[in-house]
Amino acid sequence: MESQKKYIQLDEKDNVLVALQDLQKGQPIHWKNESFALIDDIPAKHKFFINDIDEDGDIIMYGVLVGKTQHKVLKGSWMNTENVHHAAEPYYYRNVNYHWNKPDVSKFTDKTFNGFHRSNGDVGTANYWLFIPTVFCENRNLDIIKESLYTNLGYSVTDKYKEYTADILESYKNGEDIHSLSISINQPTPQKEKRVFKNIDGIKFLNHQGGCGGTRQDSEVLSNLLAAYANHPNVGGITILSLGCQHLQSHDLVENIKSKNQNFDKPILVFEQQKTQSEEFLIAEAIRQTFIGLIELNQTSRKPAPISKLCVGVKCGGSDGFSGISANPAVGYTADLLVALGAKVLLAEFPELCGAEQNMIDRCENETIAKKFIHLMQTYDAQAHAVGSGFFMNPSPGNIKDGLITDAIKSTGAAKKAGTSPVVDVLDYTEPATKPGLSLVCTPGNDVEATTGKAASGATLILFTTGLGTPTGNPVCPVIKVATNTQLATRMSDIIDIDTGTIIRGEKTIEEVGEEILEFCIKVASGEITPKAVQLNQDDFIPWKRGVSL
Amino acid sequence: MESQKKYIQLDEKDNVLVALQDLQKGQPIHWKNESFALIDDIPAKHKFFINDIDEDGDIIMYGVLVGKTQHKVLKGSWMNTENVHHAAEPYYYRNVNYHWNKPDVSKFTDKTFNGFHRSNGDVGTANYWLFIPTVFCENRNLDIIKESLYTNLGYSVTDKYKEYTADILESYKNGEDIHSLSISINQPTPQKEKRVFKNIDGIKFLNHQGGCGGTRQDSEVLSNLLAAYANHPNVGGITILSLGCQHLQSHDLVENIKSKNQNFDKPILVFEQQKTQSEEFLIAEAIRQTFIGLIELNQTSRKPAPISKLCVGVKCGGSDGFSGISANPAVGYTADLLVALGAKVLLAEFPELCGAEQNMIDRCENETIAKKFIHLMQTYDAQAHAVGSGFFMNPSPGNIKDGLITDAIKSTGAAKKAGTSPVVDVLDYTEPATKPGLSLVCTPGNDVEATTGKAASGATLILFTTGLGTPTGNPVCPVIKVATNTQLATRMSDIIDIDTGTIIRGEKTIEEVGEEILEFCIKVASGEITPKAVQLNQDDFIPWKRGVSL
Ligand SMILES: [Ca+2]
Ligand SMILES: [Ca+2]
Ligand SMILES: [Ca+2]
Ligand SMILES: [Ca+2]
Ligand SMILES: [Ca+2]
Repeated sequence: MESQKKYIQLDEKDNVLVALQDLQKGQPIHWKNESFALIDDIPAKHKFFINDIDEDGDIIMYGVLVGKTQHKVLKGSWMNTENVHHAAEPYYYRNVNYHWNKPDVSKFTDKTFNGFHRSNGDVGTANYWLFIPTVFCENRNLDIIKESLYTNLGYSVTDKYKEYTADILESYKNGEDIHSLSISINQPTPQKEKRVFKNIDGIKFLNHQGGCGGTRQDSEVLSNLLAAYANHPNVGGITILSLGCQHLQSHDLVENIKSKNQNFDKPILVFEQQKTQSEEFLIAEAIRQTFIGLIELNQTSRKPAPISKLCVGVKCGGSDGFSGISANPAVGYTADLLVALGAKVLLAEFPELCGAEQNMIDRCENETIAKKFIHLMQTYDAQAHAVGSGFFMNPSPGNIKDGLITDAIKSTGAAKKAGTSPVVDVLDYTEPATKPGLSLVCTPGNDVEATTGKAASGATLILFTTGLGTPTGNPVCPVIKVATNTQLATRMSDIIDIDTGTIIRGEKTIEEVGEEILEFCIKVASGEITPKAVQLNQDDFIPWKRGVSL
Repeated sequence: MESQKKYIQLDEKDNVLVALQDLQKGQPIHWKNESFALIDDIPAKHKFFINDIDEDGDIIMYGVLVGKTQHKVLKGSWMNTENVHHAAEPYYYRNVNYHWNKPDVSKFTDKTFNGFHRSNGDVGTANYWLFIPTVFCENRNLDIIKESLYTNLGYSVTDKYKEYTADILESYKNGEDIHSLSISINQPTPQKEKRVFKNIDGIKFLNHQGGCGGTRQDSEVLSNLLAAYANHPNVGGITILSLGCQHLQSHDLVENIKSKNQNFDKPILVFEQQKTQSEEFLIAEAIRQTFIGLIELNQTSRKPAPISKLCVGVKCGGSDGFSGISANPAVGYTADLLVALGAKVLLAEFPELCGAEQNMIDRCENETIAKKFIHLMQTYDAQAHAVGSGFFMNPSPGNIKDGLITDAIKSTGAAKKAGTSPVVDVLDYTEPATKPGLSLVCTPGNDVEATTGKAASGATLILFTTGLGTPTGNPVCPVIKVATNTQLATRMSDIIDIDTGTIIRGEKTIEEVGEEILEFCIKVASGEITPKAVQLNQDDFIPWKRGVSL
């Protein structure tokens, strides 16, 4: 891509171009052998038509159908929600012999990362102790334990704000005017240096809103999810807090955890509130016994492992009109490198595969998984329609403002982040990824529901592309934030790790950036770089609740 | 009820008796003019049959159908999930002229409570500043602000646990054995004495998991819920944190808040992360500007108001076999007193009205609200059936172990807590209660979804009965915990406020305890007693999500 290009065609079949900068009405566009003037202002990241198109005509982007015109539109005019609506090709299984050109991985074949080796052969990218409530009733107790352990063991990130608030309070008590107060925030000692247990990257808490009062199916799915987290390679020990009368009983959860791994050997501590003399005693004992567990867990340390031991989720959230041009293709190249190196890659967010289904189906390694994918997509969309919604409702106000005006436009750009390798497996929510290569995982597009599901299927790193800037992290899986544009990377530097705006400006190729992202992943997996979301303790966890509350 | 009674018949039509103590097989039962021996052990709170009943025979409790036999059962045998399944009478609208005998309220007619008077005439039982996230992406930022404000302004309840953890750490560093460590927990200074702002009872946080990624309907319901909380009589000021790209836009939320009250005059501060230079700056500014708001809010103080200004939700959770005999009827009497005094009472938990529908319908003041109730019940149950569940699935393992073996048994006992007054209104989720008297509010039975919904409809106190002990509280509405039995009240004294076990032992009448509960309510509403859940900062908040994730 040449430097400072003003607009771009993403595929030669496309009948719309993407503005790379704000373009003014009247500006001449030189395209193929002709010239025409824009008849609307086109905001950067938005699209304009290169032909007159009649009512109900096809809109082609990334070489596929992404929408239909609502009325006749003119060459040089702006594509928006008033003149285009969502449309996508029907999809079906067909026996395609998909051929994949592996990228050159010679630079990486000898590389390793320093991870935590577990007894079942898994290798973690971090070492966490995990607290799990069987039911929302225990969330407050977990919050108290969290604050107590974080403050004392060096995992807290609130110190600078507590100090800042104390400074305001002091000024107030001295009779100063808070309106015009200028107080600077002192940057604290990095977490790593404060840690009492140097080999424990954190103590994490899976507060949730389930475990009782929903359907039995909800309880079962939640149990599978929590069991998957207990079995996650980044988890070295578990404390369970249970009320007692809830649907999800603690002994069922413990059995479920153990059933997923024949060699399960992590310490599990269980505390039952209704069997305990007081809440205070429950909390104190949970703290004390966990402390003993932490002393033990701190004996583990990082050791080299091949890249093939990585399991990387790819995710987009707060997407903008550049997501499908810079960050997603770059992460897609990283995904291809990982697959070529024998690692696992997970793509989820099924509502955002709407419009990209045929491509995914054609890449499936066999008919069984292709049909599983079709079944999961259709069941999910049917559920959405049953409550008066549908996949086509996915784009958010932020997406639309930024030019992602139909779900198919969002989807075709979104699918780029999974690269081009064959699909080796299709997993329903909470099913573990077991095969090297690219697997599809059924989750919602909702950022946190999706990252929650990827970690459950085994992701030990997540590459998360964003155009608008979202803070999403995960309790057990480090999330690396990849900006689609430099403006965002600069403005929200406290949540962004990697900038792919260099691709938009033509300074670097997609492949160059893709390799840099892999280098970054290896450093994160080895504990040498701590991604922003991890530094911030951004531990988002939202179980996907498909049922009805009772 | 005579002292130390061993079993009881709840209604003269019943063909089962309830054991008030553990009864042994072989024990003689003297009933009416005959005697028979128990042929099973009957655990306390469980029921036994007083007739032989053929297969598919009716089980009558509280005078209504609550189940059917699965096979022939014998007199003196134990009723359990193996021999009985859920059944309830069909219900329909019929024009009944319901006559209510008001209780004697002469003791209370001159009483007042000291509350916070708002400009629209509402009177709060507490004075809170409220933080609202438009989307789950802001939850971490809220957690940090919460810890900073709580620590500095005297609202923290974690100090004793932080100190305890520090003591463990010190022992560990000194090489002591943590296994055999005996460390006592120091009881901290009561919150009230530590407070910087004496007229502000707390700063509350509505962390939630919505605002994006769901259906448009979900966003709308969430917006109504958050707007209802902003308008709650116990809320004096609001800070909103917004990411930017989410479905629930902050300006829509602010408009929704203002649309619910023509005279809306509470301060609202709004912070947009994607428009802010950094997360750090966002957090610091939110803290500083809220601090200024708190200085202002602290000028408000408590003033006398009539009892008619109270709005009391009645709730049961972690129910046991005594719930329908002690705590629920006592709270029901309190509810009748409140209605007779012109106050509002809210009954919710619609899945737990299954089996009690006809009674509620007959008490409805007009056909319109009766039909609204029928419609809401049928729609809800149909949704549950659509996902393979149903109201009959409501009882939890804790309920069943304690003798609440069908939903109708749970429901008929549960409905007792609403007393006997006419139903003046039926409200869908988030609709405000506007009429004095008893209103039904459509919510799930899930403890926290139900309390969340009651506070949204305007409850300024919640009476929460429990047999097994659940910690549930609410961010803006004080929750008073009423134990059905003394054993629980003693064992979990750190979460229970009132013991109604005196009724089981025949020491007090339902009416005596009901009046004591009203006295207690008045003291809580005046800030003279702080209920346990409030002392513990048990601020549970779970929006009811009816839709599908996208
Ligand atoms: Ca996405
Ligand atoms: Ca998003
Ligand atoms: Ca209940
Ligand atoms: Ca319950
Ligand atoms: Ca608790």
